[in-house]
Amino acid sequence: MKLDFKNVEGGICAAKGYKASGTYCGIKKSANDTPDTKHKNDICLFASDAECNTAAVYTQNKVKGAPLLVTKANLEKTGGKSKAVIANSKNANTCNADGVEKAEKMCELVADEMGIAKEEVLVASTGVIGQVLPIEPIEAAVPTLVKELGYGKNLEAATAIMTTDTVKKEAAVQFTIGGNTCTIGGMAKGSGMIHPNMATTLNFITTDCAISAELLQKALSEIVKITYNCLSVDGDTSTNDMVLLMANSLAGNDEITSDGEEFEIFKSALCEVMATLTKMLAKDGEGATKLIVGSVRTAPDVETATTVAKSIVCSNLLKCAIFGEDANWGRILCAIGYADAEFDINKVNVEIMSEYGCIKVCENGAGVDFSEDKAAEILKSDEITINVDLNCGERCATAWGCDLTYDYVKINGDYRT
Amino acid sequence: MKLDFKNVEGGICAAKGYKASGTYCGIKKSANDTPDTKHKNDICLFASDAECNTAAVYTQNKVKGAPLLVTKANLEKTGGKSKAVIANSKNANTCNADGVEKAEKMCELVADEMGIAKEEVLVASTGVIGQVLPIEPIEAAVPTLVKELGYGKNLEAATAIMTTDTVKKEAAVQFTIGGNTCTIGGMAKGSGMIHPNMATTLNFITTDCAISAELLQKALSEIVKITYNCLSVDGDTSTNDMVLLMANSLAGNDEITSDGEEFEIFKSALCEVMATLTKMLAKDGEGATKLIVGSVRTAPDVETATTVAKSIVCSNLLKCAIFGEDANWGRILCAIGYADAEFDINKVNVEIMSEYGCIKVCENGAGVDFSEDKAAEILKSDEITINVDLNCGERCATAWGCDLTYDYVKINGDYRT
Repeated sequence: MKLDFKNVEGGICAAKGYKASGTYCGIKKSANDTPDTKHKNDICLFASDAECNTAAVYTQNKVKGAPLLVTKANLEKTGGKSKAVIANSKNANTCNADGVEKAEKMCELVADEMGIAKEEVLVASTGVIGQVLPIEPIEAAVPTLVKELGYGKNLEAATAIMTTDTVKKEAAVQFTIGGNTCTIGGMAKGSGMIHPNMATTLNFITTDCAISAELLQKALSEIVKITYNCLSVDGDTSTNDMVLLMANSLAGNDEITSDGEEFEIFKSALCEVMATLTKMLAKDGEGATKLIVGSVRTAPDVETATTVAKSIVCSNLLKCAIFGEDANWGRILCAIGYADAEFDINKVNVEIMSEYGCIKVCENGAGVDFSEDKAAEILKSDEITINVDLNCGERCATAWGCDLTYDYVKINGDYRT
Repeated sequence: MKLDFKNVEGGICAAKGYKASGTYCGIKKSANDTPDTKHKNDICLFASDAECNTAAVYTQNKVKGAPLLVTKANLEKTGGKSKAVIANSKNANTCNADGVEKAEKMCELVADEMGIAKEEVLVASTGVIGQVLPIEPIEAAVPTLVKELGYGKNLEAATAIMTTDTVKKEAAVQFTIGGNTCTIGGMAKGSGMIHPNMATTLNFITTDCAISAELLQKALSEIVKITYNCLSVDGDTSTNDMVLLMANSLAGNDEITSDGEEFEIFKSALCEVMATLTKMLAKDGEGATKLIVGSVRTAPDVETATTVAKSIVCSNLLKCAIFGEDANWGRILCAIGYADAEFDINKVNVEIMSEYGCIKVCENGAGVDFSEDKAAEILKSDEITINVDLNCGERCATAWGCDLTYDYVKINGDYRT
């Protein structure tokens, strides 16, 4: 099977037939706002020219944001079809008595303005939990959002969903199915309250590839496991996590309706987009200065490899050591040791790697001599990979995380105010 | 049953017949040490005048420090009897090829000097993982340690096991069994790499109460579950965690050999000592400025209550919010929501409490209006309790943690050097 991807620009507007818009409406308006104040976008809309098969995965937190409940209900009503998504930052609309009512209202406003059914509109929110969402600024903004919808305006949307993110996160790839060029593009927001065990953070992915609803969901569920669910910034599983994957069939390919080569190509392209976004989310974790990649090899099965890889990138002590550029490999072995998986710790080898080189720090579960100077040089990189060989099988897995810094504490010590 | 405890001084020397000593031997000697340099103790010894029944629990990390392996082996050889314990800080003697040999040597040195069997000596180490333990300074120090053994010298030992601890941790209580005054005393070290799911950190507890080996282990295993195993500083389960509980029978009571009132009194006294040490460990967590107590009530069972309580005190986001004195209750609900337990999130009530007052912030899973000024006042305290009512049963549990601060990052960004 030939996997021939081309990375392209355009995020959620990279695929055919998707328009976007974004604006500032003042969801968290401060007292000293003036007409001249420049604000970053806090609300966005994107829509497909044709009806989309839509797959979704949601947080596994028992506390679920109202927008998730409404999106889920709408997809149930339409049998997995959708045409537009409205999303806001600055307020999660979660744990509010009127949350569902407000989230439904957001869909209704868009539907009325666009002349589509309200169930065809999906909704997502991110921001502070437990503060009442003001609907008036959204009501005022929707006509503008609909009027401004345009091809190639992905950036307007990608910036609107940013919270403590320092960079916007977009990715897109092109590939060929049956002679037709297909595109998958996506955007995501981070960067705190991010931890495996769900579909982390807000993620929107669009494609023009024709693919059945069933296979679309299958692809998303499979790829989430090895991408977003292997990501941790701080061990906190958010209440509003959601990944939406929309497919509008405008690429012209014959619909993919069964397992086989074309489905594999689609999944590989989807994985490329989702893995790229995952890495971006980890690298832009709150306060982070370094990406940490946990790469576990020679495991007896993928579950074991994944558990160990996640355990490494979730260790607060290791995250601090990486921030301090300290080759404290004992903490790596400690994190491997408390991972909830079965393997022989006395067979474990560990390497620390970056673009500046690679050193073995541990062999058969015990330390080996290494050059601290060389380690210090490797650790200067902003992307550090921890290679772990369990030496008891042939499977592997990767997890992504980031260092724990003063700025993480600063950002989260005073987030609401 | 009358529970009549008296808190007393004396730590591990509070009970009859226990001597201790401590000294600086230079396990991590720096190049610029001079004869005049004043160092804190880095090694200690304590011993009982009579043979002790000895109970122990160890880390559940797959990586186990060599001292644990040797202590466990010695207790197996003697059938749970011991007379002395040697413990050092500054080096964990873990993941070293010669670790077991060195740990055995430490026991042997003490045994030879004291004229007892080497299997009657137990050993514990704490400090950096994966650095070869220098045996020479220990060899040189043992004669001094044995010569200096004395009643009431608990402080010499309690300071020797401190690593990043800022205060020594000791507790002791007196109680009456069959008309005889019995004492249980203990010491512990923190303050990083601390997380439930084991017998956290180094903890040594001594008693003069006569109690069978079997019941001693039963009491320790039960009380560990509701004290040390409900403690988290940073989510990292150490490789060297160990709790040793020694009973030398010198109080003169008839040996406790069966369940019943006397065993319950003993367990309550043990719980008092272990809970006090647990709280001290949490409060002195690395970089901590505040103790966080997660108190879960009205749960269907203790496991559910414990899981939810631990989830609260382990949340990095909540830990940062408490550091910032921010009443960000959404993070509390988020942490409750991702706890791996079954209950109805829509029945959950949450209060934030300290000696400055108590406010309800969440009722039936949704936010309620509260005074931010009042919340700010409550959060000024250095002991914050989060009260959670699940409203689906009658069981409760408590977990202990601490805030996440700049200093945690600072301490752990550069621990080895």
